Amino acid sequence: MTLMDILKHRHTTKAYDKDRKIPEPVVAQLLEALRYSPSSVNSQPWHFFVADNDAGKARIAKATSGPFAFNAPRVLDASHVLVLSARTSLPPEYLQTLADQEQADGRYANEEARALAHKGRSGFVSLHEQAGDIPVWTQKQTYIAQGFLLLSAATLGVDATPMEGFDAGILSTELKLEEKGLAPAVIVALGYHSDADFNARLPKSRLPEKAIFSRI
Amino acid sequence: MTLMDILKHRHTTKAYDKDRKIPEPVVAQLLEALRYSPSSVNSQPWHFFVADNDAGKARIAKATSGPFAFNAPRVLDASHVLVLSARTSLPPEYLQTLADQEQADGRYANEEARALAHKGRSGFVSLHEQAGDIPVWTQKQTYIAQGFLLLSAATLGVDATPMEGFDAGILSTELKLEEKGLAPAVIVALGYHSDADFNARLPKSRLPEKAIFSRI
Repeated sequence: MTLMDILKHRHTTKAYDKDRKIPEPVVAQLLEALRYSPSSVNSQPWHFFVADNDAGKARIAKATSGPFAFNAPRVLDASHVLVLSARTSLPPEYLQTLADQEQADGRYANEEARALAHKGRSGFVSLHEQAGDIPVWTQKQTYIAQGFLLLSAATLGVDATPMEGFDAGILSTELKLEEKGLAPAVIVALGYHSDADFNARLPKSRLPEKAIFSRI
Repeated sequence: MTLMDILKHRHTTKAYDKDRKIPEPVVAQLLEALRYSPSSVNSQPWHFFVADNDAGKARIAKATSGPFAFNAPRVLDASHVLVLSARTSLPPEYLQTLADQEQADGRYANEEARALAHKGRSGFVSLHEQAGDIPVWTQKQTYIAQGFLLLSAATLGVDATPMEGFDAGILSTELKLEEKGLAPAVIVALGYHSDADFNARLPKSRLPEKAIFSRI
């Protein structure tokens, strides 16, 4: 399939085939799509929870209750369910971890290059701390990762359901997100759609080019 | 190239070959990647400005001045420069436009299906209006589109530079974003890197799997 085919044929799956599991080599690629996603100043301000078993999926499904119960079957029936979460702070120790990782990965020819990169990143983080929007900034980066995950899934022939419709408080409590300095961003179910997936048979709808592009 | 090759080889380009333009059929695919990006409740809460000429790029480069001057050459030298912006409100008329588009695209078998979808989307929008976070919510969706754009560019062999480092006030004034009910999200330069692009020769760095994944 070409990129255009992939873009046009992917869709949000509404019902999963409970009996089909994503092969582990494919899962590994999907997780790498998240890990290799870009983020502002390479901040990688995220953590991903991966449930590939009934007990793990049931924990996530606690948050698809009440007004969000319509999403529960997608969580319970999918092959794998991911919770994408974002850091709520980027303290100096974390920025040091990033600098150490970049050095270990061979990005710095010398100490000067390392110091310059560390200073630049810390400066951007400071701007966001001053603006009081670190949690929003990190969520936005995590949405880039969501984009990488969804397009990668489609490329690999895996169906997906991104879900913002969940109880953030319940999910935070269940996964102890607050203690870990994290906030939930989105739940993404992954697997293969069943015959009950009405959305697989519906045409995609998008606003026309003239509504969303301006040539300048 | 496989998906893994694409993920590992793409990088943020630091210097462009001024003489290489992206072929129009490739540009068309990149814009379709934005247009076909998914968004919560198919809200498509975005608008994209496309500059493929010196005058248009110079307008965007007004915002890469002062502390952001380091980004100016990327804006001025790239083949195409996009400004991804997000809606700051989702009024009833806009939600009606989405419903009409979905009907025109054939997503509704009957009036009941249409009314149900419209009610569901309006309900989610209301929740965000009550939370006072519509502009944040729409920015997050626009970051999914950013992810689709960046991964699609890499798939098509196009280099990219996503830039949050710009003066949002200057860019808003230049593109009259506020009057249009928009706020800037990110500038993305697209083209082909030059020999001066030091980042093309550096290894990627990412945190290890154990730091960012938890199996539950």
